[in-house]
Amino acid sequence: MSKFWSENTKRLQPYVPGEQPKFSNLVKLNTNENPFAPSPLVLQAMHDVVNGDLRLYPDPNADNFKQTVADYYGLQKSQVFVGNGSDEVLAHAFAAFFQGKQQLLMPDISYSFYPVYCQLYDVKPRVIPLDAQFAINSADYTGAVAGVIFPNPNAPTGCILPLAMIEKILQANPDCVVLVDEAYIDFGGVSAVKLIADYPNLLVVQTLSKSRSLAGMRVGLALGQAALIEGLERVKNSFNSYPLDRVAQAAAIAAFKDDGYFRSTCKKVIDNRIWLTKQLRQLGFEVLPSYANFVFACHVEKAAEEIAVFLRQHGVVVRHFQQARIDNFLRISIGTVEQQQRLITVLKELLMK
Amino acid sequence: MSKFWSENTKRLQPYVPGEQPKFSNLVKLNTNENPFAPSPLVLQAMHDVVNGDLRLYPDPNADNFKQTVADYYGLQKSQVFVGNGSDEVLAHAFAAFFQGKQQLLMPDISYSFYPVYCQLYDVKPRVIPLDAQFAINSADYTGAVAGVIFPNPNAPTGCILPLAMIEKILQANPDCVVLVDEAYIDFGGVSAVKLIADYPNLLVVQTLSKSRSLAGMRVGLALGQAALIEGLERVKNSFNSYPLDRVAQAAAIAAFKDDGYFRSTCKKVIDNRIWLTKQLRQLGFEVLPSYANFVFACHVEKAAEEIAVFLRQHGVVVRHFQQARIDNFLRISIGTVEQQQRLITVLKELLMK
Repeated sequence: MSKFWSENTKRLQPYVPGEQPKFSNLVKLNTNENPFAPSPLVLQAMHDVVNGDLRLYPDPNADNFKQTVADYYGLQKSQVFVGNGSDEVLAHAFAAFFQGKQQLLMPDISYSFYPVYCQLYDVKPRVIPLDAQFAINSADYTGAVAGVIFPNPNAPTGCILPLAMIEKILQANPDCVVLVDEAYIDFGGVSAVKLIADYPNLLVVQTLSKSRSLAGMRVGLALGQAALIEGLERVKNSFNSYPLDRVAQAAAIAAFKDDGYFRSTCKKVIDNRIWLTKQLRQLGFEVLPSYANFVFACHVEKAAEEIAVFLRQHGVVVRHFQQARIDNFLRISIGTVEQQQRLITVLKELLMK
Repeated sequence: MSKFWSENTKRLQPYVPGEQPKFSNLVKLNTNENPFAPSPLVLQAMHDVVNGDLRLYPDPNADNFKQTVADYYGLQKSQVFVGNGSDEVLAHAFAAFFQGKQQLLMPDISYSFYPVYCQLYDVKPRVIPLDAQFAINSADYTGAVAGVIFPNPNAPTGCILPLAMIEKILQANPDCVVLVDEAYIDFGGVSAVKLIADYPNLLVVQTLSKSRSLAGMRVGLALGQAALIEGLERVKNSFNSYPLDRVAQAAAIAAFKDDGYFRSTCKKVIDNRIWLTKQLRQLGFEVLPSYANFVFACHVEKAAEEIAVFLRQHGVVVRHFQQARIDNFLRISIGTVEQQQRLITVLKELLMK
């Protein structure tokens, strides 16, 4: 604490990201990265822009990238916002739509950055418990004033909310923004993007960190009707004119253009998820039905924390949250076949001895 | 304007950056980029990290980069903060130290993003006129409550404030942060970094966009005592855990390590500035004494706007500000010898016909 800090800064309790170990011999299944490298065409596009032109500012509006995304989803460029990772996009959305307001509806178990943004932007959340199966009940989401926010699939549960249920939430809250955070949508879910034309209050947020294997490059985006995007642009242009560097823009464009690679890696992640779910269940885990690139699992006998510590000692890192209702669960990112086999081997050492 | 926007978003008047033309046959002297490419060692370091590891998140704390900067300046790592361009670093500094406060002292002519941050973070500025020679008079900077902020060298004037005068401002305002924005310090000025040990209220902000030729990669930093840096970290970790991508971190480290290249390009910029200043004066311009990679010049007869329009028609872009006191000045970035010769040739067409 320092006398120089603003009152708001004194009150903040910052987000704690998953560990990013500095040595690489670990089986790293703790931050939901894609187990597969970015497309070779993405890497080539990046090499192509590593040259003397880096002395020049990037396009502040990332027009080519926005147009690429718009074409991909059948939207207008004015319906696309881009930023330095979806965390920055979410932050700007809090500033643009929720700041200073009451009653932002969110699930009790969801992305733990949301309550932090509430502190940063003076938003009063109303937390709505998931049901006993860890599902969002759309009928609970009424009376929002600031807005509504939830991940779909939800994190860290992996559970999906069908589009028809999302429409009920949009219809029940027509005067405020409903933000659907689709960080994990490409691993088997159906995007709410197709609802944008019908709902001026819908904002869809996505990231290139998961399904497009570019966590290292920090690119996120928001999709919605032009009036919402304009609000985001006002905030962005009052904060940082050039959030996406030249290399990130090149990578992002190429990632959307190589759709075949994208589809094949997503399919491999889904296949590996099916395999991992089956193996974990055979070892006595309850595994929630996941539409994400992770599973959320709870062992019938062993405490989650004990399992996580044992795994860490044997070079496998998973995520454990010290949080009510889920403190006996582990969030395990989908890995390669080899990584998952190593995980199962270590788990067998612990659970079958 | 949209009913979905927050009240603050409705009030914002965003910053307008200099034009980034999408075709490259222009002599681009409008956004103070370095005319020289980044170091070949920087480009090599970037190529080296364009690989499959981009699927993984970057180091959220950029520890290696921070340590490199700390070693360079003889500081501790805890005295270094880094961000996605110095604009993001400045934004976080407004949130961490100035937000919600009255009386942020700043010059009437300085970086035009500062008043925008004041809107975004609910800060009340007190604007202090530069003297008739466009110099900051340190005796004017008393009674700050939120803090003090100014660029040194100042932008867009290029004028420098000696360290002794900065110390007077630091001493006159011991209970709030004095932010010295050193975007252009490496082109002949003396950094205030050496004052950090003596002044807990000093925050120095720098960028790799100018003297290190990396505008395209968006890297900025702040230097100060650990309590100030901790305030910035609290805000950053409540906004975006991973602001610097893997390629930007690699580029930034290499840029600080190749000190020989850095010094030689800075010297070339200074040499070109001397040449350009002389040429402009011969053509009837009044040129303020510049310590930056641009000059600020006013013609004795021709209006600045007319000159800017003529230059643009002939493929040379410079910056003109529609702002009281300086609307008859042009800010001209230092270019290569060839770019500057082209500028002078076009100016002669206009002024000597």
